[in-house]
Amino acid sequence: MAGSSNGRSASIISMTSFSRRQMLKLTSVGSLAALASVAPEGVAETIAQTTHAAVPKWEIFELALQGPSAGNPFVEVELSATFALGHRTVQVYGFYDGSGTYKLRFMPDTEGEWSYTTSSSTAALNGQKGSFHCGPALPSVHGPVGVRHERHFGYADGTPYFPFGTTCYAWVHQTDVLQRQTLEMLASAPFNKIRMCVFPKSYEYNHNEPPFYPFERSAAGENDFTRPNPAFFRHLEERIVDLGKLGIEADLILFHPYDRWGFATMPAEADDRYLRYVVARLAAYRNVWWSMANEYDLLKAKTVQDFDRFFHIVESRDPVSHLRSVHHSGPMYDYGHPWVTHASLQSHDFDSAPEWLKAWRKPIVYDEVMYEGNLDRRWGNLSGEELTRRFWLGMMAGCYVTHGETYLDPDHPADENSTPTVMWSNGGTIKGTSPARIAFLRKLVEETVTAPGSHARAGLDAGAAQYYPNSSTMDDTGKLTQQIFYYFDFHQPITYEFPLPEGTFTVELIDPWAMTIKPLSGKYSGKTKLKLDGRPYQALRFKRVSA
Amino acid sequence: MAGSSNGRSASIISMTSFSRRQMLKLTSVGSLAALASVAPEGVAETIAQTTHAAVPKWEIFELALQGPSAGNPFVEVELSATFALGHRTVQVYGFYDGSGTYKLRFMPDTEGEWSYTTSSSTAALNGQKGSFHCGPALPSVHGPVGVRHERHFGYADGTPYFPFGTTCYAWVHQTDVLQRQTLEMLASAPFNKIRMCVFPKSYEYNHNEPPFYPFERSAAGENDFTRPNPAFFRHLEERIVDLGKLGIEADLILFHPYDRWGFATMPAEADDRYLRYVVARLAAYRNVWWSMANEYDLLKAKTVQDFDRFFHIVESRDPVSHLRSVHHSGPMYDYGHPWVTHASLQSHDFDSAPEWLKAWRKPIVYDEVMYEGNLDRRWGNLSGEELTRRFWLGMMAGCYVTHGETYLDPDHPADENSTPTVMWSNGGTIKGTSPARIAFLRKLVEETVTAPGSHARAGLDAGAAQYYPNSSTMDDTGKLTQQIFYYFDFHQPITYEFPLPEGTFTVELIDPWAMTIKPLSGKYSGKTKLKLDGRPYQALRFKRVSA
Repeated sequence: MAGSSNGRSASIISMTSFSRRQMLKLTSVGSLAALASVAPEGVAETIAQTTHAAVPKWEIFELALQGPSAGNPFVEVELSATFALGHRTVQVYGFYDGSGTYKLRFMPDTEGEWSYTTSSSTAALNGQKGSFHCGPALPSVHGPVGVRHERHFGYADGTPYFPFGTTCYAWVHQTDVLQRQTLEMLASAPFNKIRMCVFPKSYEYNHNEPPFYPFERSAAGENDFTRPNPAFFRHLEERIVDLGKLGIEADLILFHPYDRWGFATMPAEADDRYLRYVVARLAAYRNVWWSMANEYDLLKAKTVQDFDRFFHIVESRDPVSHLRSVHHSGPMYDYGHPWVTHASLQSHDFDSAPEWLKAWRKPIVYDEVMYEGNLDRRWGNLSGEELTRRFWLGMMAGCYVTHGETYLDPDHPADENSTPTVMWSNGGTIKGTSPARIAFLRKLVEETVTAPGSHARAGLDAGAAQYYPNSSTMDDTGKLTQQIFYYFDFHQPITYEFPLPEGTFTVELIDPWAMTIKPLSGKYSGKTKLKLDGRPYQALRFKRVSA
Repeated sequence: MAGSSNGRSASIISMTSFSRRQMLKLTSVGSLAALASVAPEGVAETIAQTTHAAVPKWEIFELALQGPSAGNPFVEVELSATFALGHRTVQVYGFYDGSGTYKLRFMPDTEGEWSYTTSSSTAALNGQKGSFHCGPALPSVHGPVGVRHERHFGYADGTPYFPFGTTCYAWVHQTDVLQRQTLEMLASAPFNKIRMCVFPKSYEYNHNEPPFYPFERSAAGENDFTRPNPAFFRHLEERIVDLGKLGIEADLILFHPYDRWGFATMPAEADDRYLRYVVARLAAYRNVWWSMANEYDLLKAKTVQDFDRFFHIVESRDPVSHLRSVHHSGPMYDYGHPWVTHASLQSHDFDSAPEWLKAWRKPIVYDEVMYEGNLDRRWGNLSGEELTRRFWLGMMAGCYVTHGETYLDPDHPADENSTPTVMWSNGGTIKGTSPARIAFLRKLVEETVTAPGSHARAGLDAGAAQYYPNSSTMDDTGKLTQQIFYYFDFHQPITYEFPLPEGTFTVELIDPWAMTIKPLSGKYSGKTKLKLDGRPYQALRFKRVSA
């Protein structure tokens, strides 16, 4: 790493100043981190104040320090820093990056003059001071995503964020060629979130060894859980940056049960150390979400209390307070806990959404509603029509739904150890029919925001007691709904009376599968009885044109 | 009525000695009841023993007696009889049929010499004695339907009965022309049960007055609940006989909430008297089922305890012990009660079937899973595909499903008081696409019975823990499954490994919508991996060809 004369270097990691096309080059850490010019003022014996180059809001200020490399710095050296702006202070934890290099990463969320002071049990790392100016965000950077309006999401700058996620659990553990193909696919896909595992995956259709292991590993396959592998994490960080440039949130799965290496059964102190290390490295990346686990209840070596503790570690170590959840297989984790920001469900029970929303008062993401595909597994062979339907049902329930695709080449050899390209696990290309319809739905949902960039109420709120799910958009001033959607699912009425609220509306007939929008002539108000096509799986959109 | 010299007449009501085509004439009571020759031996002052003509098993022996017509015979005269065969006695209640005529109806279920003695508070009706021979059942008569093998149904002679019902709530309250049309439709439809109301119905798409009222009624519309209208019940009986000739069970709904005449809000003593009267008139018809109510919970004037009492009255007064249930809208009645023979659900929650079957240990009929149609009501506009799917899901869960159709002519005038022909309410013709597929499914289910007429285990038993619902047929000797079905619902695998039990099987690919059966060549045993079409909503049938 480039270092300054007193052993300090700072770099700024920017994720969005590239076009999508530029980004598609797989980038190394070195080329990614646009190094800032450093202006060291080091004076012997006295710890000087280093003034660093300016950092745009929501990019990463990275401080690299040289320290001891003897012993095991991962466990023996503590490093943190206090970043301050005016009266505000933010505690940030550092990490050992190998070869005697220690790093602190910080994502400034406020413009102004930030200063820092390091703190360490090791003299060489202690009491380091510096400052930098935080300037305006780069174009089209909106900051990290958080919860808005109780059951929706938004970027830090107030721009609504509607999660339309997909699933590529082990894509970062595939060949470079396949990772590149996945990024190319994502560049033109409708997805703005991806569920992905930190640890490599050992499961059906995924038997390959990963290019990197998360811990030092002996030739005999013994892990040293006290020594994370910096190369592994640098690689992961590159992929997170790649995703960021595509406007995709990395929904990082910190533990999962599909394991043959021992990462699912580490001792508790190794789990906790791993979490602290991951959070120290990754929390400054604005497009990170924390998912404590995939199918946490299948991690038989861990208890629910272990997951409570994981949440506490992540929450207390993450200065950005990224979104936090955990995904279940059978029994749900208690999403009502205050340390959980949103529910991450394995379910397609959309009828229960109203009671869950009321109980948890949090956004619900149906992160696994089964996948479009052709596998011989119940969860992996939905038709594109059925997955499209589930997206609509989830959205109309005021929730969000995540895509996954599990098409297997019918001619793939039935070799237990072969690893075909099944997108849900390995990434690759899209073969299914639902993504085009998901893109169509995403556009409709995004059009509900009448004033982009404002704090308009994001997303769709489910109506309470309609025969057909009914949803509406309200702005923060409590004004009446601007748009009302109906989705008819398997119902095929030839007429329907729509109880419009106050105001005058236009109406469009929407075919979610054909992706057509057909405006009806005229304006409508009050009880509005319309002739319909008498076909199932149709939708309608009412738009308010006057109060 | 034809009477013998001592005021007694007996007739035999036979339902199945006619072909379907003959039966389609609407029949009057007189022409229907084939009068038996009566051999009176009346001697003044002594009550003689009357020997009546023979009655085939499961037909109706009807005894008509002349008695007082003054006052209110409906409430003032008690009549019953004890029928005896060897050491067995059966208590049967009579009813007043108007014009001084009292009747007793009895359905003999055992061949042999039956005798009877009447009992009445009125001397003229008391102590009448007679006898008749009960001979073999008429061709293709199997007796009343009861529960078999805990969760299935069968006729009294052991023939399995698989309910494939439909719904025409108010068909007997329409014009003669429309009733005839309904019977013509039923003659070629796949249905062997019909849900129908005793009382006329006042509801959407059904605003007409009925041809008959169940009680005497003043010009001003005042009901006399103490005086049932025999003409009303004779008409109803004709329709029950018509259905019987078609092999259709009449699932008679005794109370319902869709009422403008007062039948839903009678006082308790009128309810109870009505029930005793209905059971006395109809229990001898072998194709009757008792449904205490449709949507019992919407009968706001009644409590759950009222329905408990209704069950007790019907059970204690019905010598045939016909099937008894009650249908709900929201909260279920407790189908675990011993006086309930089977569950009659409004639900399409087939996932809960296993736990309900286990809890109730009774057959489950999903009597309302919403209807195929085009109405502007959530319950009345399923696609034919969706209703077909629900039939398959219900059957694969080891339960039974009932059809209903709610197509409204798009050009029907939107007059609140007009009564269009919507089959689910008024009968008429079939417009939908599901009945042909239901016929196809019914044939498949009936083919699971390898030895018709034996006590072969009727129907499909759901597998316990299969990825896809799995069902099988076993005979009473506990032999291995003869047929195994898989239904893939919205799943579309291109391969699937079927864990076949012991034995060798052939396999057929079934398309439930196209109604095709495509045999694969070869025989299969053990774990059998098959290539499939990768299309949703497909099924498979394995047939055992050797042990």
